[in-house]
Amino acid sequence: MTGVGALEAPIGVFDSGLGGLTVLRALHERLPGEDLVYFGDTARVPYGTKGAKTVRAFAQQDAGLLVSRGVKMVVVACNTASAFALDHLREILPVPVLGVINPGVRTALAATSGGAVGVIGTSGTIRSEKYQAGLAEGGLGEGQIVAQECPLFVPLLEEGLQSHRMTDLAIEEYLAPMRSAEVDTLILGCTHYPLLKDEIAHFMGPEVKLVDSADALAAAAQERLQELDLLRPEVAAERAGELSFLLSDIPWKFPEIGARFLGQPIENMKTVGLDEMEEAGHAMEQL
Amino acid sequence: MTGVGALEAPIGVFDSGLGGLTVLRALHERLPGEDLVYFGDTARVPYGTKGAKTVRAFAQQDAGLLVSRGVKMVVVACNTASAFALDHLREILPVPVLGVINPGVRTALAATSGGAVGVIGTSGTIRSEKYQAGLAEGGLGEGQIVAQECPLFVPLLEEGLQSHRMTDLAIEEYLAPMRSAEVDTLILGCTHYPLLKDEIAHFMGPEVKLVDSADALAAAAQERLQELDLLRPEVAAERAGELSFLLSDIPWKFPEIGARFLGQPIENMKTVGLDEMEEAGHAMEQL
Repeated sequence: MTGVGALEAPIGVFDSGLGGLTVLRALHERLPGEDLVYFGDTARVPYGTKGAKTVRAFAQQDAGLLVSRGVKMVVVACNTASAFALDHLREILPVPVLGVINPGVRTALAATSGGAVGVIGTSGTIRSEKYQAGLAEGGLGEGQIVAQECPLFVPLLEEGLQSHRMTDLAIEEYLAPMRSAEVDTLILGCTHYPLLKDEIAHFMGPEVKLVDSADALAAAAQERLQELDLLRPEVAAERAGELSFLLSDIPWKFPEIGARFLGQPIENMKTVGLDEMEEAGHAMEQL
Repeated sequence: MTGVGALEAPIGVFDSGLGGLTVLRALHERLPGEDLVYFGDTARVPYGTKGAKTVRAFAQQDAGLLVSRGVKMVVVACNTASAFALDHLREILPVPVLGVINPGVRTALAATSGGAVGVIGTSGTIRSEKYQAGLAEGGLGEGQIVAQECPLFVPLLEEGLQSHRMTDLAIEEYLAPMRSAEVDTLILGCTHYPLLKDEIAHFMGPEVKLVDSADALAAAAQERLQELDLLRPEVAAERAGELSFLLSDIPWKFPEIGARFLGQPIENMKTVGLDEMEEAGHAMEQL
């Protein structure tokens, strides 16, 4: 690994769209002195319905764009991109790369009290079987791992419908098998899902622990930066880190939906054209 | 306009994803002797939630790809791309270009018996106001035009859920204002919606005429090819036209969903990489 950026460089975070803002929020809460650059590939969202090769090509461009902005670390906030592109990005990027799946798996393994662990995610994430493999490596037997695709959660949330009868129906349909399997821990394996935490908790019951990938990933990022001596020193932690936002498209319902994911209005936002994405992707091939 | 292809060249059809297969199907039924090349931008679907500039950039690549395959006409099966990119494509493409909005408007104006006309579509299509402008130009007053975004129909149909309680709820929510406004004609302003024709007809009642953009567009394409002397002669019409399919990604639920839109299994399918899309887009700039 070469060219690891300076202490003062920002941390880069990318996602297929706006869902990763839940990760940015968790990072900002945990590391308030760090500057954060977010890239959301809103022009090509969603990733979760698309094939591995496509997701890998997109992720290379997304990460390349952050590298071109001089980040000291790339956080892959998107579960689907983590599932299909993490190894590839680790090979080609000149900075450390952190994915969302391992932190989620570790947190779930620590949380479970020996029953079954459930994981919900996009079609791509679940079909990649990365979460299932991680849980199995952690010692769970086949009967203790329950996985479920929830393809409609993303469009419902991108429409701002977390409290809606359609969303209630989707929760009922997707999560009924989880309830029957009596999971004691449920991984929210998509950065959009923390917005449904209350509704999911209500359906699953209070005894089921929900693992929010955003919190787990922010903790892992802090740990990793510390190991690499890339964390801003304590004394500097009193500064207010800057947040900046790059998007490949401005969706019709932005900024309303964006603010909901971030928990505050989105300022300091720029769009990135298709040409710049192409260049950023090609630049990563030449490293 | 230069370089109009030979009589024997295929007709090109593109869409943001698989929805445009309903247009391909209508074209194949009406012009069974013509070869048809379909391109679905499944890597970047949907277009309907995305901004005008993004849709225009994508449409340029999509059309460019078809032109690189030697088509004699480009049919823009996607309503959102028709709304935002049709004028642009007509300026830059070396072959005739047909959009889906004007044929739909003309059919609706012929069908209405003087009451209100409704149009449903994606957020992009409805917010572009192209249908509304076309209906107004055709003589309808403001009170006779009712438009409604239906952003969840596309993800529901891409998931194969046309007969599902969630879809029933979406129909009820989106179309209740149409029923109150007592429209006598309803334009299905998205290539996905013909798959919901029965459900929408049931909700709206038998007196409401549904305008299927696919049929209207196929009729317009036939007419235009005839005018340009580009239609295969009658005697050749007994040949079985070949269908071929290009996709930028193979979605997880393809081919099941594809076959549903086309009405038959999809054979003769190839994928197109991101690089080839980029080249096709740039090639159109140099014409």
